[in-house]
Amino acid sequence: MTATTTARTPRTSPATSTAASTTEALSTESLRAELARRFAERSAAMARLGPGMAHLWELAAEHAQGGKLLRPRLLLAAHDAMSEATGTTAASQAEVLRLASALELLHFAFLLHDDVIDGDLFRRGHLNLVGTLSAERETGRTREDSSRPTPEGLHRGQTGAILAGDLLLSQVHQMVARAEVDPPVRTALLDLLDEAILVTVAGEHADVALSDGTEVADLDTILTTAARKTAAYSFALPLRMAAALTDGPAAWHPVLDRAATHLGLAFQLQDDYLSVFGDPARHGKDACSDLREGKQTAIIAYARLTSAWPQVHEHVGNRGLTPEAAQDVVGALRSCGADRFVLGLVAEHREALAALLEESARSQAPLPAAVRELLGALDAELVGRAS
Amino acid sequence: MTATTTARTPRTSPATSTAASTTEALSTESLRAELARRFAERSAAMARLGPGMAHLWELAAEHAQGGKLLRPRLLLAAHDAMSEATGTTAASQAEVLRLASALELLHFAFLLHDDVIDGDLFRRGHLNLVGTLSAERETGRTREDSSRPTPEGLHRGQTGAILAGDLLLSQVHQMVARAEVDPPVRTALLDLLDEAILVTVAGEHADVALSDGTEVADLDTILTTAARKTAAYSFALPLRMAAALTDGPAAWHPVLDRAATHLGLAFQLQDDYLSVFGDPARHGKDACSDLREGKQTAIIAYARLTSAWPQVHEHVGNRGLTPEAAQDVVGALRSCGADRFVLGLVAEHREALAALLEESARSQAPLPAAVRELLGALDAELVGRAS
Repeated sequence: MTATTTARTPRTSPATSTAASTTEALSTESLRAELARRFAERSAAMARLGPGMAHLWELAAEHAQGGKLLRPRLLLAAHDAMSEATGTTAASQAEVLRLASALELLHFAFLLHDDVIDGDLFRRGHLNLVGTLSAERETGRTREDSSRPTPEGLHRGQTGAILAGDLLLSQVHQMVARAEVDPPVRTALLDLLDEAILVTVAGEHADVALSDGTEVADLDTILTTAARKTAAYSFALPLRMAAALTDGPAAWHPVLDRAATHLGLAFQLQDDYLSVFGDPARHGKDACSDLREGKQTAIIAYARLTSAWPQVHEHVGNRGLTPEAAQDVVGALRSCGADRFVLGLVAEHREALAALLEESARSQAPLPAAVRELLGALDAELVGRAS
Repeated sequence: MTATTTARTPRTSPATSTAASTTEALSTESLRAELARRFAERSAAMARLGPGMAHLWELAAEHAQGGKLLRPRLLLAAHDAMSEATGTTAASQAEVLRLASALELLHFAFLLHDDVIDGDLFRRGHLNLVGTLSAERETGRTREDSSRPTPEGLHRGQTGAILAGDLLLSQVHQMVARAEVDPPVRTALLDLLDEAILVTVAGEHADVALSDGTEVADLDTILTTAARKTAAYSFALPLRMAAALTDGPAAWHPVLDRAATHLGLAFQLQDDYLSVFGDPARHGKDACSDLREGKQTAIIAYARLTSAWPQVHEHVGNRGLTPEAAQDVVGALRSCGADRFVLGLVAEHREALAALLEESARSQAPLPAAVRELLGALDAELVGRAS
């Protein structure tokens, strides 16, 4: 039975009855509503704990809605494609939607702690939760833009982000631990969550060590770190959860993990490219924030090996980098070919993904055609973006 | 069947066979070994993620061993007393020991994030994990005392503590989610863990809001905050987990919760007393660190209402408070009776606990005598301590 035929075969299992609702749930609106329910179901508990907690939770709910829902959309789409192929699923559509929303909570929890660690106040051109809480402290409940909070404001903001992150991380585990699926499937989901958190934390830890010079910033280390920080929970976790829910064969697992690594790296390298060479008005990040924070990216690792390094070196990690000086650094990076180098790496990972998917199609237990199409489309979507 | 007879009746259920091992497990040594196993079972995974993670995990394991194991000891002792009374337990002795070690991991995870939020570098007179990592950064792998790390050192230390805290918080949920007990018991344990984390986070959040002046620091708010921060996970969680494991009647629940609140407040108020009026050489905390951090305690709330306030006021939250000036503040606090006031509150909660236990003894579903004895002994142990 080949994947191309399997993927087109109507399902005869319980999954069949949920085909229509799966399609509906794919919509961003369903996911946003589900995510809102995750916060709403705890808002009474927060209110009981006083206005401070109620307010923190309300702000967290607002900020959590700002994302593109990449991870939950991937879980839903992969679950749909895989259950069609295997003809089975362990979970109701409502349960899959719940688990998908848990992935967005996990993403948001990581962002909150990441923003504390990086001292960031903005995300996508708006104040993040740290920045919003800091600004409130400064001006009394207004959202006035504040990129230089007082130490007291920053402390309040970072405290709120650490604690909200702890609550969300706990909630994700609670949701997976209570998933209404057979015990072995639930254990598999818990294993996948555990592994994803461990690898992501290791990626974040190494990222900070690279930035502060504790670890040597060679290209290999930079790419390993990026894969851990991005691929594990953003790509491998949704794909492997979908496979666990739909009883996908074990032969899929390494293919999904390798696909996740290529997607994660293509995504992260494209992000690095946009941060330095993209249009800040479109990607919404602080222009050249990567340079200012001394982030050790593939761009910097490449530039270090070229004659442009003397012009770049002193500005990496310079918190006072002016927009004018930043433009000079960007010019030097372009002239040494760092832009072409990083785009070349993106292309390499896209090609490797395509080769992997082709190889899988010819294997004994191929990934279903619909899953391969999904991964190919995701790759194009991620890399084609300007933000 | 009254509690006094029940508690003395030999058990006839599966719990009987574990009576001897329970007694053994009560020893601190068993718990330390169990806690070491929690870290050891993840050290291979950490090593796979590189020397940075392996080192962070090794340090976390060392620092986690520094506590008095109050919470796990309470779970073991309460489980022993309750299973003897009810004649049943849902878990093997090995499983109870595992769950007890999870409580210490939870405690340590909270301490790590608490130390980041409070900017603390020491605990019990030694560098904490933040301080240790900061000092390494400064001096290259030595533990040289460093109470004034560079911003880079502090960043490394706080990053490590945030990430290690996330890993431990995740591990606690994973352990409870996989507890080898009947599904309804496991769900009850998950509920209790969830509630304890929520309430503790609310307490920590309010504590920071009190210190920075966002919330009004009246005595009621201060005591509510202290109960949330201390009683919920340190006393209510071990006691209620023990009751859930041993099928204790629902009538026990409110009694255990109220006992936990009295114990938590007596414990916290005694801690506040020791921090200001105790001997720093014995309690190991930075002398007057509560004053320096502007911590809003019952002592401060009382002093605010007395004529000593003008002498105290300006020093609360003064990070540059010298030991000499601190002694003057302590003298002013003594002269206005703040020491007697806080010790009076401790006594009130001890009396309330005793009254609660007596009331329970006369009730329809009394707490077993052995549990009442345990709580009474714990109260005396906690309050009799000098550190």
